[in-house]
Amino acid sequence: MENNHDNWGRWGDDDERGSLNLLTPERVLAATRACTTGKVYSLSLPIQEQGVPIFDYRGAPRRYSLTSASDHDPYAEFGAAPGVGSNEDMLVFASHSITHMDALSHVYTQDGIYNGFPRDEFSTQGGAGHCDIRVTGTFAGRGVLLDLPRHQGVEWLEPGHAITRAELDACADAQGTEVRAGDVLLVRTGWLDLFAQGTEEFRQPGLGVDAVSFVDDHEIAAVGADNAAIECIPFDDDVFLAVHIELLVKRGVTLMEHLKLSELAADGCHEFLFCVGALPVTGAAGSPINPVAIG
Amino acid sequence: MENNHDNWGRWGDDDERGSLNLLTPERVLAATRACTTGKVYSLSLPIQEQGVPIFDYRGAPRRYSLTSASDHDPYAEFGAAPGVGSNEDMLVFASHSITHMDALSHVYTQDGIYNGFPRDEFSTQGGAGHCDIRVTGTFAGRGVLLDLPRHQGVEWLEPGHAITRAELDACADAQGTEVRAGDVLLVRTGWLDLFAQGTEEFRQPGLGVDAVSFVDDHEIAAVGADNAAIECIPFDDDVFLAVHIELLVKRGVTLMEHLKLSELAADGCHEFLFCVGALPVTGAAGSPINPVAIG
Amino acid sequence: MENNHDNWGRWGDDDERGSLNLLTPERVLAATRACTTGKVYSLSLPIQEQGVPIFDYRGAPRRYSLTSASDHDPYAEFGAAPGVGSNEDMLVFASHSITHMDALSHVYTQDGIYNGFPRDEFSTQGGAGHCDIRVTGTFAGRGVLLDLPRHQGVEWLEPGHAITRAELDACADAQGTEVRAGDVLLVRTGWLDLFAQGTEEFRQPGLGVDAVSFVDDHEIAAVGADNAAIECIPFDDDVFLAVHIELLVKRGVTLMEHLKLSELAADGCHEFLFCVGALPVTGAAGSPINPVAIG
Amino acid sequence: MENNHDNWGRWGDDDERGSLNLLTPERVLAATRACTTGKVYSLSLPIQEQGVPIFDYRGAPRRYSLTSASDHDPYAEFGAAPGVGSNEDMLVFASHSITHMDALSHVYTQDGIYNGFPRDEFSTQGGAGHCDIRVTGTFAGRGVLLDLPRHQGVEWLEPGHAITRAELDACADAQGTEVRAGDVLLVRTGWLDLFAQGTEEFRQPGLGVDAVSFVDDHEIAAVGADNAAIECIPFDDDVFLAVHIELLVKRGVTLMEHLKLSELAADGCHEFLFCVGALPVTGAAGSPINPVAIG
Repeated sequence: MENNHDNWGRWGDDDERGSLNLLTPERVLAATRACTTGKVYSLSLPIQEQGVPIFDYRGAPRRYSLTSASDHDPYAEFGAAPGVGSNEDMLVFASHSITHMDALSHVYTQDGIYNGFPRDEFSTQGGAGHCDIRVTGTFAGRGVLLDLPRHQGVEWLEPGHAITRAELDACADAQGTEVRAGDVLLVRTGWLDLFAQGTEEFRQPGLGVDAVSFVDDHEIAAVGADNAAIECIPFDDDVFLAVHIELLVKRGVTLMEHLKLSELAADGCHEFLFCVGALPVTGAAGSPINPVAIG
Repeated sequence: MENNHDNWGRWGDDDERGSLNLLTPERVLAATRACTTGKVYSLSLPIQEQGVPIFDYRGAPRRYSLTSASDHDPYAEFGAAPGVGSNEDMLVFASHSITHMDALSHVYTQDGIYNGFPRDEFSTQGGAGHCDIRVTGTFAGRGVLLDLPRHQGVEWLEPGHAITRAELDACADAQGTEVRAGDVLLVRTGWLDLFAQGTEEFRQPGLGVDAVSFVDDHEIAAVGADNAAIECIPFDDDVFLAVHIELLVKRGVTLMEHLKLSELAADGCHEFLFCVGALPVTGAAGSPINPVAIG
Repeated sequence: MENNHDNWGRWGDDDERGSLNLLTPERVLAATRACTTGKVYSLSLPIQEQGVPIFDYRGAPRRYSLTSASDHDPYAEFGAAPGVGSNEDMLVFASHSITHMDALSHVYTQDGIYNGFPRDEFSTQGGAGHCDIRVTGTFAGRGVLLDLPRHQGVEWLEPGHAITRAELDACADAQGTEVRAGDVLLVRTGWLDLFAQGTEEFRQPGLGVDAVSFVDDHEIAAVGADNAAIECIPFDDDVFLAVHIELLVKRGVTLMEHLKLSELAADGCHEFLFCVGALPVTGAAGSPINPVAIG
Repeated sequence: MENNHDNWGRWGDDDERGSLNLLTPERVLAATRACTTGKVYSLSLPIQEQGVPIFDYRGAPRRYSLTSASDHDPYAEFGAAPGVGSNEDMLVFASHSITHMDALSHVYTQDGIYNGFPRDEFSTQGGAGHCDIRVTGTFAGRGVLLDLPRHQGVEWLEPGHAITRAELDACADAQGTEVRAGDVLLVRTGWLDLFAQGTEEFRQPGLGVDAVSFVDDHEIAAVGADNAAIECIPFDDDVFLAVHIELLVKRGVTLMEHLKLSELAADGCHEFLFCVGALPVTGAAGSPINPVAIG
């Protein structure tokens, strides 16, 4: 079963960070030199109940008011001046809502999660026993955007299309984008633009299994995309979560989904500093994120 | 009413970003050159029910399991191989839980929120009508850390201590830290270290009103601290939320609280690139954050 | 303003119970004598995410696991034997989810809620200042079911149909059901049966304004129905919440919606003891309920 | 292993109702004749964040506002008159919060839950596979109150006290209360009165294992008490959940905790009709309840 769990044990038997180990301080420092404009991009869709992609079983994210001016001078007892108070909210949402990061504990197979930690370790009260989102949620590095629809001269790739290694190579070449070890690879499929048209179609373009070698050969640290699951849906070869299993489970590659890449694309900004700080929720298998790109 | 609402109207009557307007692309680009080590710091405490500072009315943040391997082959109907599935969570917490950012709609006075938007605009269903967290949640800039306990040779400043302008000046001088226009100012009081000792005391060291002129004179873009409210508690001059009113409401200065600054301090890292992406929750008056510093 | 707010002041200026004042102990005791079979009926639909009527803005009710056997011997530290533990849940739902009771604070008009309490008294932190669900949530009395579809020989009344006073009279007569002062009136429209067919139609049969005199003349203590709002939708005379305003606001008549009346109807059980205990949530404007009928 | 699982199989191998099978229509009908005053009692404590007994891991129950008059004429688009709208809430609480009912799936041992259903059947997404709260949540019967503190001439039984069979017998005799097959047994320990004094003590008086024979011999259908767990804490014989295992798991006896019994006690009302309708949440292992007693 050689090469079956490509990175299991590569960074030690107790490693929980997977390919983020590739993000050495030297590479991060070099990544800061990728900035040329100083323009700051938010890569997250808004978190709201409507107009954004939501899976039924996760439920729509909700904001409730916790305090407001309807609470008549609530702090008067603390000596607050009349009319002074605060607005606050309660937030209720799934860890994998809208724009989010998968922790390495997110997907399990018969053999367990990344690096062989037990598949049934995720408990009701405690959540992840290993590889929770705290371990991989914070990182920075050189980001590269492969804008496939632009390269292929379409608005979006066809729903269901399985992106190949050759397509990624061709796009990088055409863009003149050099992909380096430790890079954060962002793949634009255009799917969010199709979604914005009001499509009800669930099928999505995304990486096929063939594209995994691109991640291997370039020693990619993390992968993000503007679709629901990085990979194409229906899944490549009809293998459920085929690319998640290859990247997240076998290689420990952190994945980020539903990234808003349209502004980077519009500016033709293909190389940038990528920074992300997921919410470090103890035990969680993921988190909503708002990554920052600096052009 | 001169100088009463210092920045109201400064960036236009409909401005909702306040002092973040100071963060021009040029300044952001310059900030990337502040990095010298490439070391990445997470400035957030873990989000969990115990061992972190929590206010009763906000409730402890909660993680619940949404899916797990206890759901027996839940995706079999989609052709999933036996034993394949996903772990996911539900997250329930206050927008101002633990390490968080205040949106400019967070505090209101009789005169309204920042820039004069109505004080009762924050509604039950919609939340903030102006200045929600989406507007100010994403930014990057040069970060400077003023490590007051280190400068003063103590573990933490005394609970209740109101930090003065002179103390900030002296600390910056002693550190050799030049503070520049558009900087993100992080103030370490040591309070989280006192909290970690298990203190039940609610009194906290923090900025006094006297220190506000430091923010003005240096054209600070945003302020963060390791305490609950940036400012000292009990409030300076017994004015409820005195420094919030000066900075957040009058000047539109974004505030970040309960930042974990101990690692930066331990490394003596006083200048760095600061990046933050709050969750862009439509209508919210704040968000948990996990800012990233790159040394 | 004669007759404009029919019951305001009737039971005192500070009354918060409205027509439940009609449920004297004598009437309750008499109601227990209505039982003839001892068969117990649950009048609530199941609380679940699918297959039940849910309004988008309220969200689907959710159950999350709080503890389970996936928590490996969680009580071992308390001396629990191996394998012993508990299953518990977290429940997240709107107060007006599925089968529910409206508190008298639920609907407000320009003039306020029932009995003239202020319309803006319901605050973010505290909820209802008067007439929360604790005040009216617990009662028992003689229940009568008017089974309109059965009487009219149809499966369900037409969506949008406004039930008239004459229809209620005719149904009661045909059933041989005497309606008495203090009765809890349950009206079956058949709408839940239509819903069970998978209709996507939102229009519903229900009481029209004309039927309100039936409640007045019979001194009804509370009204329930198997539809979403007691009243017909679109609202009678195109007045938004017309019947809620007449019954709940002006008369203080407690309303219960989405009651499961099919079993009572199938048994021809038209007179019974009706008991309900809403959740006594401090400040809430309503509660899910599971009323009990004893035939 | 004779008599080891006393009621497993008694009502069939697929029975999920346990001792509620004892509540035949004849017994329910007879129970309605127990009423003599028509006074209606709510047996639930208020559901709120403070002043009521709450376990940390369950969290305080929370009410948030969902709609209110702060939403400026939210229904204007539907033709609502100015100033008309609705107040609604979101409710977030544990199934076993404050006054609640245990479903028969609540406690598991190495051998499973009641009637031998698997101990690990309770899944993250679906909850209880058998014996969820829908199956046992709705019932009515003759209620009897054994008011132990009154009988023993104390305000409350001592914290930690294990109530014996002899104490129950003596109390029933002294009260002149005949206990009959199918009765709902409510035991008052006085603990809630001690709690109301502000005690921080977690030890509680409650049933000891010795008292279980009282339930057996009288063929009790369900048991309620005013303490946290029916049974005494610390657990009798230091067996974790000893009485839960005897009653809930082995015998399928429905349990109800934190009942507010003080009003019944004050009136000397020891026999009554008992009605309860738990929230029929699909998959839940329990529910908050507000049982109704009619004197």
